[in-house]
Amino acid sequence: MSELHDIAKVAREASYIMASLGSDIKNKALANVASALLSAKDEIFSANRIDLEEAEKAGLDTPLIKRLKFNDDKINDVVSGIESLIGLEDPVGKVTLKTSLDDGLELTRVTCPIGVIGVIFESRPDALVQIASLCIKSGNAVFLKGGSEAINTNKVLASVISKAGIEAGLPEGWLNLLTLRSEIADMLKLDEYIDLIIPRGSNSFVQYIMQNTNIAVLGHADGVCHTYIDAEANPATALKVALDAKTQYVSVCNATETFLINESLKDTFLPEFIDTLKNAGVEVFGDSYVSSRFGLTEVTEWHHEYLAMKCSVKIVKDVEEAISHINHYGSGHTDAIITENKQTAERFMTMVDSGSVLVNCSTRFADGFRYGFGAEVGIATSKIHARGPVGLEGLVSYKYRLIGNGDIVRPYCDGTKNFKHIHHEI
Amino acid sequence: MSELHDIAKVAREASYIMASLGSDIKNKALANVASALLSAKDEIFSANRIDLEEAEKAGLDTPLIKRLKFNDDKINDVVSGIESLIGLEDPVGKVTLKTSLDDGLELTRVTCPIGVIGVIFESRPDALVQIASLCIKSGNAVFLKGGSEAINTNKVLASVISKAGIEAGLPEGWLNLLTLRSEIADMLKLDEYIDLIIPRGSNSFVQYIMQNTNIAVLGHADGVCHTYIDAEANPATALKVALDAKTQYVSVCNATETFLINESLKDTFLPEFIDTLKNAGVEVFGDSYVSSRFGLTEVTEWHHEYLAMKCSVKIVKDVEEAISHINHYGSGHTDAIITENKQTAERFMTMVDSGSVLVNCSTRFADGFRYGFGAEVGIATSKIHARGPVGLEGLVSYKYRLIGNGDIVRPYCDGTKNFKHIHHEI
Repeated sequence: MSELHDIAKVAREASYIMASLGSDIKNKALANVASALLSAKDEIFSANRIDLEEAEKAGLDTPLIKRLKFNDDKINDVVSGIESLIGLEDPVGKVTLKTSLDDGLELTRVTCPIGVIGVIFESRPDALVQIASLCIKSGNAVFLKGGSEAINTNKVLASVISKAGIEAGLPEGWLNLLTLRSEIADMLKLDEYIDLIIPRGSNSFVQYIMQNTNIAVLGHADGVCHTYIDAEANPATALKVALDAKTQYVSVCNATETFLINESLKDTFLPEFIDTLKNAGVEVFGDSYVSSRFGLTEVTEWHHEYLAMKCSVKIVKDVEEAISHINHYGSGHTDAIITENKQTAERFMTMVDSGSVLVNCSTRFADGFRYGFGAEVGIATSKIHARGPVGLEGLVSYKYRLIGNGDIVRPYCDGTKNFKHIHHEI
Repeated sequence: MSELHDIAKVAREASYIMASLGSDIKNKALANVASALLSAKDEIFSANRIDLEEAEKAGLDTPLIKRLKFNDDKINDVVSGIESLIGLEDPVGKVTLKTSLDDGLELTRVTCPIGVIGVIFESRPDALVQIASLCIKSGNAVFLKGGSEAINTNKVLASVISKAGIEAGLPEGWLNLLTLRSEIADMLKLDEYIDLIIPRGSNSFVQYIMQNTNIAVLGHADGVCHTYIDAEANPATALKVALDAKTQYVSVCNATETFLINESLKDTFLPEFIDTLKNAGVEVFGDSYVSSRFGLTEVTEWHHEYLAMKCSVKIVKDVEEAISHINHYGSGHTDAIITENKQTAERFMTMVDSGSVLVNCSTRFADGFRYGFGAEVGIATSKIHARGPVGLEGLVSYKYRLIGNGDIVRPYCDGTKNFKHIHHEI
């Protein structure tokens, strides 16, 4: 603990220097990281081979091994990711408010880095590169704790990236790799030095993090996403979107888990809908009506994330019942309505309390890359700070700058002077 | 606990309806509240008399009794506050991002209320009215727990305001008054229903709140604010600003507690500075040099908020040492530099990690009303969500709305379609 405490103190100091770096140094650091990664290819690949051998010995599933693998394709991907990050606007130093409080007393609100960020991520070495790059661009110091299966690869990557950054002018201690699982619990206690934790991983893991730290957490535990098919839905749209939302990629947080069907569609749309899902290989669970009518298993828990070719189907009376079901059983992540009625769509979007509310399209769109943010830090279900898919702007805060010329408050308090409060367009 | 739990469930449902209200209904509710308060004057004043009698019996300090008193002046103040709130722009429903992901697939980011807010505030009945009004304007449901000394006044106010709101179209359960101190601990556990806690009050109380809830907290524990007087300060500016920052009103969080003086000013500015403070009735504590030279008591703890006619004075080598002292001992609230050197000022503003950083003016300016926000929810020292003086925008979040026409992600994944990501000016 005390060692981590000392490292955190250094990281905190580094964060102040990170906050003062201009875009040129940050972009130079990013370019340096990209070329250093390409130069250190062999070293990275041989460390990765050790991780892969261990993973195979341990009998890891094929998809996990695929994510763990760091090869030429992956390195090219992360390098092109870094290049596009260089091209993005600097999220720091943007003026977002400008008010003259009085003659010569000028207030501005300016974006600044958050400070020190702790990221806990799955066994995917490319995630380490992405997160480190995002932290450079946004001027934050960072603690990284990757999945233990990738430990050898991560050690090499962290060392290469840290050095390449420092050579370009980043301060010592801007990047810190944690290698022991026990260090996660220690990190969660460092609220004096760490401003934000971003946990990625399983539902239960993220919940553990959220419940065991006083540090703010950006992320989401589960993604129980809904698609409601309204009485006034276009049936062809509904079928097409529903299939995509459920089956296009099942193991992700923005896949639809529950379909809510307006009861007026019971004898028209519903039978074809159930058939279409079944034909696509989806196992359907239903409410008491749906399960008994179609001979399906009944749903016992509506707040349930399958992450598999399975889904729940429920009949609802109207959009109000759909909204109420979603707000009660959903996770505030992403929910969609299929309807041709604009008023119903508006009602749904206003009342559903989720980070993304969609009309006539697939819940799978709710993602930082698809939303055009260039980079995604994660998807947040909290309503405090960043919400929904979070890009670089989730890694910045702001501060107020007030510049005067010997101004004091006394004359404004005794009424001899009055504020002008002239708000300027940005 | 279980009763509060049930009330919180109702408040959560009410919050969805609050989120759907147009500006007209919210402004009508505010107008209704204002006139209901004026009509219920006698009832409010007589409840307040009971509180005042109890307070006098209990021997409360005069300033506390002054804050507790609710008379014609106070009611006129809160009513004019409500009227100016009606005139402010609705913070909900603002479009803050607009991107065409592809033809006919339109993404917008729209501000929305946070949901349910819990506010714990001092024994000041006018605070109840202000907070309730801010929650109406921002469309949030609210739990209110005021200081116990104001309980009779608060009960009447809450009942009048709640009813007046409901008559104008707000949902039942939008406002809930807690009357028992034990209910605070219960409220802190309701993370399923409450999105944000705003505690106002003493340092230790706010710290207790922050450490005992998983709900996000907006606020600040202490305000250890600094004014650094640089080698290139204008001495007259420094004296004038320092006096205002320390003495204009001592019991507030944005009063300066520590002065940092550049060592080059030891034999020029320093003696006059110490004299000026003493003559104004300020008890000065110093570092070892200052205390021994001027015969003062030595400071033992630099992270100290006097909230009195007392201050600490320290000699620092340069702006770097000042920055480092502030980041180490400050509370991230408000810090000022006095200098004529623009580069030094810029360095200070960039490196000092506080919600407000000021140049050549008094720390006492750091306040939502003075910043021109119209209303202040509180001052936040966290860097997550709202920071610094927080106006209505601290009571809103946002959601993403995506409207398509049967769009699915599959063609974008298999490469048959590409995103256009056309960003529109707001």
